[in-house]
Amino acid sequence: MAQEARQARNASRQVAKLSAIQKNRLLKDIAELLKQNTAQILVANSQDLDAAQGNGLSEAMIDRLKLTPQRINAIAEAVLAIAGQPDPVGSIQNIERMPSGIQVGKMRIPLGVIAMIYESRPNVTIDAAALCLKAGNAVILRGGKEALHSNLALARCISAALEKQGIDAAAVTVVPNPDRKIMQELMTLNQDIDLIIPRGGEGLIRYVSDNSRIPVIQHYKGVCHLYVDKDADIEKAIKLLENGKTQRTGVCNSLETLLIDQAIADVYLPKVVELFKAHNVKVHACEKSMSQFEQGGIDVSAATEDDWHAEYLAMEIAVKLVDDYDQAIAHIETYSSGHTEVIATENYSRAQDFIRTINSAVVMANASSRFSDGGELGLGAEIGISTSKLHAYGPMGAESLTTEKFIVLGDGEVRS
Amino acid sequence: MAQEARQARNASRQVAKLSAIQKNRLLKDIAELLKQNTAQILVANSQDLDAAQGNGLSEAMIDRLKLTPQRINAIAEAVLAIAGQPDPVGSIQNIERMPSGIQVGKMRIPLGVIAMIYESRPNVTIDAAALCLKAGNAVILRGGKEALHSNLALARCISAALEKQGIDAAAVTVVPNPDRKIMQELMTLNQDIDLIIPRGGEGLIRYVSDNSRIPVIQHYKGVCHLYVDKDADIEKAIKLLENGKTQRTGVCNSLETLLIDQAIADVYLPKVVELFKAHNVKVHACEKSMSQFEQGGIDVSAATEDDWHAEYLAMEIAVKLVDDYDQAIAHIETYSSGHTEVIATENYSRAQDFIRTINSAVVMANASSRFSDGGELGLGAEIGISTSKLHAYGPMGAESLTTEKFIVLGDGEVRS
Repeated sequence: MAQEARQARNASRQVAKLSAIQKNRLLKDIAELLKQNTAQILVANSQDLDAAQGNGLSEAMIDRLKLTPQRINAIAEAVLAIAGQPDPVGSIQNIERMPSGIQVGKMRIPLGVIAMIYESRPNVTIDAAALCLKAGNAVILRGGKEALHSNLALARCISAALEKQGIDAAAVTVVPNPDRKIMQELMTLNQDIDLIIPRGGEGLIRYVSDNSRIPVIQHYKGVCHLYVDKDADIEKAIKLLENGKTQRTGVCNSLETLLIDQAIADVYLPKVVELFKAHNVKVHACEKSMSQFEQGGIDVSAATEDDWHAEYLAMEIAVKLVDDYDQAIAHIETYSSGHTEVIATENYSRAQDFIRTINSAVVMANASSRFSDGGELGLGAEIGISTSKLHAYGPMGAESLTTEKFIVLGDGEVRS
Repeated sequence: MAQEARQARNASRQVAKLSAIQKNRLLKDIAELLKQNTAQILVANSQDLDAAQGNGLSEAMIDRLKLTPQRINAIAEAVLAIAGQPDPVGSIQNIERMPSGIQVGKMRIPLGVIAMIYESRPNVTIDAAALCLKAGNAVILRGGKEALHSNLALARCISAALEKQGIDAAAVTVVPNPDRKIMQELMTLNQDIDLIIPRGGEGLIRYVSDNSRIPVIQHYKGVCHLYVDKDADIEKAIKLLENGKTQRTGVCNSLETLLIDQAIADVYLPKVVELFKAHNVKVHACEKSMSQFEQGGIDVSAATEDDWHAEYLAMEIAVKLVDDYDQAIAHIETYSSGHTEVIATENYSRAQDFIRTINSAVVMANASSRFSDGGELGLGAEIGISTSKLHAYGPMGAESLTTEKFIVLGDGEVRS
């Protein structure tokens, strides 16, 4: 991979110099070619699907792998949406004159070369390539083995678009032999790769974080909390719980723990029981709330320490009655995964304090945790979610794939 | 260290909640106590100095270790300057209303717990503590063994100030037994430490980068280039060279390589020879410029590949005549350390292009590389310089010790 990474580095210099118009023309060509080549992409995808079925991959895995004309169209539309976004590079933050006479500003620039390490979804190939190009970067895409034919077919559309615009094809490199060794080698190439973004299970992300010499964006898990304060609006708090837990369970921004102020439990808890009954939600309850769930006929067990750390990704939730607001804060600070936390309250001071105190990537008052997503938060497309505070924190759009350099405009000034 | 790191994590929550007024009061107390305790600090420092002399440390090392009443006063004044800076945390970037109705903004927050790993300068103990506290963080300071008594005496001033303001003393932890094992343990504590900043030689920084599980700010070396374009103003270009190379040689923002457009060599090179002669600068010259230096009586040798990578930190420089602007850019892109590069030119287009194209942390037109410093660039104090593009790039002030979280203000909205 060393040679490919060096070529990507060289190509990144060309991509960095493209104007917004040139980059958007390239993205439009990619979208166009995806639509034109739908038939060929589906043929490649069916090869992957056949192999997946032969290898006994799970229904869920196969669904993630599967492309359809509608899905390919949606992928192309996402590329067009990225083309429509403002250009993240080139802007200069307020140039100020220093006492020495020099003028100093900061200019937003691409990171350089980004490596994506991901699993089965072929749409990541296009999403990541489009976002990286939009931000002026070259990208090395190391997808899952099970999606290789699909990824290569998608890569051909990208190469053709690059070629049409006269851009070095090494600007987007799809690794043609995505084995573990390649991944290990990638992680050592810190001369030519500036950032690694792993997307997939916790094991993959931890492995990359622990072994990479290149900075890594970490996204472990989402143990999102909803705290229902004693001054919550009951109807809103039920809607937030229903949406956060039941709308889509397999995603990192769904709720995993519900904290209820004891003072409101009498009125709130019966409605929770009703809701969980309707959606067949399994509960891991604290001692104090246990009996209410039992009496309501809910599938309930006693919450253990593990439950407060758990990301169920299923119709399953941990529930705890807390003595007061401070205990809720302490619980969240102990068990938070740094992803998203929500307070339901009509109390101004506690809403303010929660927003200030909780330092997860996304902190909400009276809104569903399901909004914790690049699209919903206004970033356009999303390349990942960072739960570590360095460089980027929370959903990452194109701007997170850039950095800022200092620029100095002088007239021969020297330091005395 | 695991317990100390956990205590630092707990203390960081308290520091994060302090108002700007509280933090500045704390910093003023630290400055006051440093001045009041000058005698005791000097006693502790003399213990370190005696040991250093006994161990045969170099003159330069001993000078870096040495404190004087003036130096302590300067350290205290630096703390007051940090107190006088704007508060980097709490500001909220433009809150926008999304189509769903939720309001989304970004709030600047502290990173949490920062570990500094550094060598002999005791002033780093106070500078780093003050900057980390200003940004709302707790800090773990692992200084050099040779400065331990000095560091502990300085730490007592900090502890007394923390106590006076009712803040957990674990907010600033000076490691009392700074051996290598402690450093190794620190690098594994990614649950409770958010960032490691190593300051010292390249070996230390590379060791920490390669072995840490915690994100590391990397600052390797400064191989700063001055490119003298064919349209340079000769007088300015000589002043920039003199200031960049000879004002102070042992620092990372001094010049190490001089590139000269061939078209201007006839008029510029004789003045360079004169300058180098006056300052006794040793030259590693390309083939084309060799004879001129020889004829001028300069100590010159033929530049090797190593010279283009060299950070001399001495009255020594590599010189190359280039065919044109493009060759200069190519040379810098190949050998740049990502620190600071300067173009001397009166040509508008090339100045603009250089500023845009070169992606080092600091890029200058017609200004001395010696301005590449937090103070000169307007950051106030500086905790380090990052030459990697992630999180921070270039000189880092208090704002680089913070991050941004998303905040969402809703009124019961759910995702459809």
